[in-house]
Amino acid sequence: MALIEYLNSVQKIISDSKRVLTEKVDLYSYSFDASFGKYLPDLVVQPKSVQEVAELMKLANRYEIPIYPRGQGTSLSGGPLPVKGGIVLDLSQWDTKLDIDAEDMVAVVSPGVLTADINHAAMEKGFIYPPDPSSSNVSTIGGNLAENSGGPRGLKYGVTKDYVIGLEVVTPEGEIIRTGGRTVKNVTGYDLTKLMVGSEGTLGIITEAILRLYPKPQATRTLMAIFDDIVDSGKAITSILGSGILPSKLEMMDNASIRAVEAYEPLGLPVEAEALILIELDGHPAAIDDEITQVHDVCTAADAKEVKVAQDDKEASGLWKARKLVSPAIVREKPTKISEDATVPRSKIPEMFQRLKEIKERYEIDLVVFGHAGDGNLHPNIIADKRNQEEMRRVEQAVEEIFKAAIELGGTLSGEHGIGTLKAPFMEMELGEVGLDMMKRIKQSWDPKNILNPGKIFAEPGQKLVLTDD
Amino acid sequence: MALIEYLNSVQKIISDSKRVLTEKVDLYSYSFDASFGKYLPDLVVQPKSVQEVAELMKLANRYEIPIYPRGQGTSLSGGPLPVKGGIVLDLSQWDTKLDIDAEDMVAVVSPGVLTADINHAAMEKGFIYPPDPSSSNVSTIGGNLAENSGGPRGLKYGVTKDYVIGLEVVTPEGEIIRTGGRTVKNVTGYDLTKLMVGSEGTLGIITEAILRLYPKPQATRTLMAIFDDIVDSGKAITSILGSGILPSKLEMMDNASIRAVEAYEPLGLPVEAEALILIELDGHPAAIDDEITQVHDVCTAADAKEVKVAQDDKEASGLWKARKLVSPAIVREKPTKISEDATVPRSKIPEMFQRLKEIKERYEIDLVVFGHAGDGNLHPNIIADKRNQEEMRRVEQAVEEIFKAAIELGGTLSGEHGIGTLKAPFMEMELGEVGLDMMKRIKQSWDPKNILNPGKIFAEPGQKLVLTDD
Repeated sequence: MALIEYLNSVQKIISDSKRVLTEKVDLYSYSFDASFGKYLPDLVVQPKSVQEVAELMKLANRYEIPIYPRGQGTSLSGGPLPVKGGIVLDLSQWDTKLDIDAEDMVAVVSPGVLTADINHAAMEKGFIYPPDPSSSNVSTIGGNLAENSGGPRGLKYGVTKDYVIGLEVVTPEGEIIRTGGRTVKNVTGYDLTKLMVGSEGTLGIITEAILRLYPKPQATRTLMAIFDDIVDSGKAITSILGSGILPSKLEMMDNASIRAVEAYEPLGLPVEAEALILIELDGHPAAIDDEITQVHDVCTAADAKEVKVAQDDKEASGLWKARKLVSPAIVREKPTKISEDATVPRSKIPEMFQRLKEIKERYEIDLVVFGHAGDGNLHPNIIADKRNQEEMRRVEQAVEEIFKAAIELGGTLSGEHGIGTLKAPFMEMELGEVGLDMMKRIKQSWDPKNILNPGKIFAEPGQKLVLTDD
Repeated sequence: MALIEYLNSVQKIISDSKRVLTEKVDLYSYSFDASFGKYLPDLVVQPKSVQEVAELMKLANRYEIPIYPRGQGTSLSGGPLPVKGGIVLDLSQWDTKLDIDAEDMVAVVSPGVLTADINHAAMEKGFIYPPDPSSSNVSTIGGNLAENSGGPRGLKYGVTKDYVIGLEVVTPEGEIIRTGGRTVKNVTGYDLTKLMVGSEGTLGIITEAILRLYPKPQATRTLMAIFDDIVDSGKAITSILGSGILPSKLEMMDNASIRAVEAYEPLGLPVEAEALILIELDGHPAAIDDEITQVHDVCTAADAKEVKVAQDDKEASGLWKARKLVSPAIVREKPTKISEDATVPRSKIPEMFQRLKEIKERYEIDLVVFGHAGDGNLHPNIIADKRNQEEMRRVEQAVEEIFKAAIELGGTLSGEHGIGTLKAPFMEMELGEVGLDMMKRIKQSWDPKNILNPGKIFAEPGQKLVLTDD
């Protein structure tokens, strides 16, 4: 009943009927994301202005109907899933603004702009927008803001949050506020900007963002080092970072990743090697020429079996191809990929490798490890077949063990994918009861009726990890 | 009555009676900071453990007595002032922990450690702790965290908040929580770490912090450029930043600052020049040698009257001396210095200069402008004599006009000094009623009895700017 009344009112707010979706076939497309679970929404609306969003939120409060903001649905943690029915706000169509201001060194963007497009536009004016999640060609900046997305360049440049200095936000009760602004320094009251980024659409809907840009590095150099012993690769990483060099990327692949890629597309990778690391340096040409020699020497001293330095951009792309192919390669082996992002302090990477090996053996799972080794943000990926329920039970247990291992080593549940529905049951394990309660108090004070993206971050009593779609 | 009971209980928590101060002469030392106003506390306690702080907070809630955390009292906005009586928690004596972990590239520190000491300890191991507020030799990291302090290196390296990845916090109700951790990437729930930093001691008491370190740059170079026209200096700044060079520092001084310094200590500065800028580059020697030439050419093209490049560290120190002497020089002219930090987008610096000139003339005040021009964080300083009440009234009006100008130009009330008591009356002007209300909701939900640092950030009804000590 409430929903029908709501629908009538929505049609008054959104005059363009094409932007209000009610057909089952349309609703189905919004029932899933890149994680697990299917939940059919009652309605999908595609707003294109802050006024529309504000009015929709006000209405939703009046009728007490859940609202789920959504970008392109690439979430790996269930962020946009309409778990309690209600309305999906699809913001992916709202990509009207992408302004680069060279003087203030900022980009001002609408929520539906694709993240890679921001970087391309910035590069045309001599800047970069550094955050580079793997999904950046298909994911929206709105989704990246909600989840505080990372990426390989995080090691040197930080994550999405480090670049957001101002927001326009519709509060859970439908009020429009502005946080921060165009200045890098701002200490006027609580930092609502950084509170919003990474709050997974539970504290407000971001309708515009002001993002810092960075001068475009003059040059980049790439190096690949191959190791017979994974512990040696860890030592090489520590030595490089300890030598005063801060690479723009420092990625690793374990033996299983190397084998999967080589089976998918023969690149001449050493299938017997236990690990390889890929390093990109950026900056002044003279500086990185010097640094690449240092990195070469450090890897050799750490018993690298082979060190390859790309002589030009083409060779560099060739080396990076191995890393890019890991995801497509591993899903060819089995159809279901559980991509984790449990993160540990850099010094604990060797211990985390050991723990992962034990978990792999104990639960007899197919585990592949690769990722952003430079900042401790590994991506242990389990490949499985979700039609095999017995296997999925073992996978669920293994995932829980991975979370426990990360937390015991002083790390965190999630480095860049977010909590969503998937990791909500484990929040108290990391934060403790009081820590979690302080977060809930903020949610409660901003969204007393729990209208905005309910069922995320905070678990329902008894909620458990579920990696099936039913 | 409540206070006497509280005192008895405090003496049970703090067995060392030297750390509980009740003598009037002691209390007086805690009645002021580096801003305006004198407020005598009822009691001063110097806790040295998280358990002591937690128990003191729990007691304070039971007896409903205000608690004011305090570092070295260098606040320019009234952050630690005990405006409603009650108890000052002096954390400056708690400096037990200063651990540098080279592998994780972090420092773990107690709240009373001096900020400059963190950088010195980091440098011994090949790192830097970049935030460098002018007070860093005397201010505590706890105070820097509460206020989210900036400094000249903010242009390239960001502010305090950008380096804080984990905290131990006592909540306003006396519970102990940990936020974040030792990993740079962490998206597990709301970002309470960055919410705490800059919350001016109103949301919790920070008892330990984990700070990111950065590899120590191999070299630095310094350049001074002198301009007959202040607008040309602004153009030079924009051109430098637009050329892809990101200096570690980019400071400016106006004619009044130059004259004041030259009168204080003759350094051979050009007293007729309208502005000078000082630039420091850091990084790889080959890179900065190249960049300093580019900066030189840009300044010359922007009609600099003279450009001096320091040939060694000694010459560089000589050039920076001018900037360091501004503060001592201007207070010799008149005893009262009102140091503002209203910040504007970089592109609005020339307009802000114009507005400041008009304000100076309209209110007949002694206004000196210098500061962090590279990031728009100027420091308009008014020098006056607070015994002259008529002058101080004009100063109060001028300060209000400066805030209005900054906000109208898309800037902010405070870039790095905080709101405290001083700027609280102007919060709504920048944030609007709803924006301010969202902040109040957080405070209310965390500190329902308003025990922790009451009277800060949020103005009392009718509260006005007061720049006297009465």
